[in-house]
Amino acid sequence: MRYSKIFSKSTKSTSADNESINAKLLTQAGFVDQEMAGVYTWLPLGLAVLRNIEQIVREEMDALGASEIFMPSLQPKEYWDTTNRWEGVDVLFKLKSQTGKDYALGCTHEEVVTPLVKKFVQSYKDLPLATYQINTKFRDELRAKSGVLRGREFRMKDMYSFHTNQEDLSAFYQKTLKAYVRAYNRCGLQVKVVQASGGVFTQNLSHEFQAITDAGEDVLIACNSCEFGENSEIATHNEGDACPTCNAVLVKTKGIEVGNIFDLGTKYSDAFELEFTNEEGKRQRVLMGCYGIGTSRLVGSIVEASHDEKGMIWPKSIAPALVHLVRIGEDAESVEAADGLYNELRAAGIRVFYDDRDTTAGAKFGDADLMGLPLRLTVSKRMLAESVVEWKERTATEATKVPRTDVLASVKTFAQA
Amino acid sequence: MRYSKIFSKSTKSTSADNESINAKLLTQAGFVDQEMAGVYTWLPLGLAVLRNIEQIVREEMDALGASEIFMPSLQPKEYWDTTNRWEGVDVLFKLKSQTGKDYALGCTHEEVVTPLVKKFVQSYKDLPLATYQINTKFRDELRAKSGVLRGREFRMKDMYSFHTNQEDLSAFYQKTLKAYVRAYNRCGLQVKVVQASGGVFTQNLSHEFQAITDAGEDVLIACNSCEFGENSEIATHNEGDACPTCNAVLVKTKGIEVGNIFDLGTKYSDAFELEFTNEEGKRQRVLMGCYGIGTSRLVGSIVEASHDEKGMIWPKSIAPALVHLVRIGEDAESVEAADGLYNELRAAGIRVFYDDRDTTAGAKFGDADLMGLPLRLTVSKRMLAESVVEWKERTATEATKVPRTDVLASVKTFAQA
Repeated sequence: MRYSKIFSKSTKSTSADNESINAKLLTQAGFVDQEMAGVYTWLPLGLAVLRNIEQIVREEMDALGASEIFMPSLQPKEYWDTTNRWEGVDVLFKLKSQTGKDYALGCTHEEVVTPLVKKFVQSYKDLPLATYQINTKFRDELRAKSGVLRGREFRMKDMYSFHTNQEDLSAFYQKTLKAYVRAYNRCGLQVKVVQASGGVFTQNLSHEFQAITDAGEDVLIACNSCEFGENSEIATHNEGDACPTCNAVLVKTKGIEVGNIFDLGTKYSDAFELEFTNEEGKRQRVLMGCYGIGTSRLVGSIVEASHDEKGMIWPKSIAPALVHLVRIGEDAESVEAADGLYNELRAAGIRVFYDDRDTTAGAKFGDADLMGLPLRLTVSKRMLAESVVEWKERTATEATKVPRTDVLASVKTFAQA
Repeated sequence: MRYSKIFSKSTKSTSADNESINAKLLTQAGFVDQEMAGVYTWLPLGLAVLRNIEQIVREEMDALGASEIFMPSLQPKEYWDTTNRWEGVDVLFKLKSQTGKDYALGCTHEEVVTPLVKKFVQSYKDLPLATYQINTKFRDELRAKSGVLRGREFRMKDMYSFHTNQEDLSAFYQKTLKAYVRAYNRCGLQVKVVQASGGVFTQNLSHEFQAITDAGEDVLIACNSCEFGENSEIATHNEGDACPTCNAVLVKTKGIEVGNIFDLGTKYSDAFELEFTNEEGKRQRVLMGCYGIGTSRLVGSIVEASHDEKGMIWPKSIAPALVHLVRIGEDAESVEAADGLYNELRAAGIRVFYDDRDTTAGAKFGDADLMGLPLRLTVSKRMLAESVVEWKERTATEATKVPRTDVLASVKTFAQA
């Protein structure tokens, strides 16, 4: 990707929502643009991050054996009446068609997936099953805040599982819990797994996944070694206690919720009469679980957890590109050398963002720090004279020089590291 | 993909919207499920087709140099007031937040993209530029009909281009017109390019792309050789005339609109005062074009254009998989042989849908015809005895036998053909 070819440039103007670090940095770097409070456009670089995260989540859900589908945002009022949630969910956007029909705008999809699955499930042989989607969600928040952390329109992966018995549901729930931790870790994020109450969803078992950051809204008592955590409001342990899981020490910390999973029991299968015929030929209610990850919220959480005073710091796995190639100078020799390196890296399958603009070295380096790609490579007349390229990792304090002939091999090693 | 692992099975029940062939076949084959009139869930196999089409469209837009972004569905009323379309577009869904704000639900995105681009364009040096998204759209249709052809919620690629002068806009418009024809052809669809009036969008130049099928809503006078076509209502030629482009004969035919492109002139840049500083230092209005392809409508159009009495016939490029592998028999030998072929094909990068269910050969062959994947391969005890696999292309009338050892090579040749 060439910087000169995308219209969305970095800008020093901060967004209106400037109390939040993620909104400020993502906006300044040209990753997102705020349309209105709580509603953002994903610009090319931000969309690349979002897509990378969604692909990691997709792979982990596929590995659980879940099938990907794509459900509607427009949902008939009758379904929400069936679960008594038309009035009960205060963040539900409602609209009316010109033919007089009432619709909800999906903030969650139990009301769609339960009657859908009912069409395909007759007997115990059709179970268990799990299905998920990655889609846009809508919430009529009283106060949208914190940039892409709490929006009125956002991206989410939601999975639903269906089981004949509690043992099977619990086993899948635990497998999913582990898949979630893997997905966050692959996105470069350390999380704590916190047992939680189910809110409007359920009275049954539920867990939250909390990303540790000072910008967190929730206070946790969490292990400083493993994933154990408790919400401080309902904690059964104190700071300084031994972790009940691994015996390390518990500390007080702040977290952002980046996902949650729920044992729904028969709440929705009762409402929609979702039943199966068991091995004795009797009809029984299906047990359900639901599992959510806010993928756009995850982008913001990673910015909150991974930045410094100069800008964002993207983990390699989800960065818009691995290499931020900076060309200093507009002379034919520098252009040819930088174009050559750009083409060489791309031909080797390396994702490269190429700052080929005619602007100052200072502006380019400032943008590179702000945008936070893992590795900055600089081509200039001075470097060419020495037959080297400047090598600067985003997390390193110093730049080094790498012989031009070694660059591809070194980048490949860096990509794997 | 194993049939036993996806919950969405084929079903002989037709959808409520059973007058349309695409709704009937897509629903029977388990590709989509109708949630309510004009609103569908995309099930695993249907989603695979939709994704394949959207990827082809994405590649063609990228090749034009356009940057992909992702814009919000929630749009502030003020933007639609600015263009005088809040009252003017009768299919606009409207909703109100609990804080009292009025939103439109995006049926098109000129009202978002124009103020967005305005933030990044100052001078002629920032132009031309083009940006696109692939997103869900909403239209408050009085009558949703024809399955996925005209829905209240649907998928669309919309691109917008921005130029300093008419010559540059016209050149990009013509390049895009050719890219559209390429995209449809890559999806296995022949189209006619029909000059059209611009509807609510514009009084300027506009073209429609019409897929030729008996189910078409529009009557065309079209060339039987090249892409030339005219809407019969405003045609300047008659059936039997020579084509003005290639001199072949013009015939009367029916078409479904699968895309359109518009020269918007300064309509939206006037409304939003989107200006640039020209080379003489003077401020000028930006010229715009917009370019749409309904990707979910394209799925339905291809079904209408490509099916027979037994079911759908998918072009290789967009089929959910290239091979429909049928296993007949539950004995260990057949299972091992079919599993082996499944793994061998997948290891070679071939997309395979594997019917590993315990059901009759008749049911499996019926489903294979209905689902319409390009190549059916059958493994059975009888075939194993002859060391062959049954080979049946969806468009062929007869099945043949291929030596088991030649299958992979033959499939690779078929994939390339």
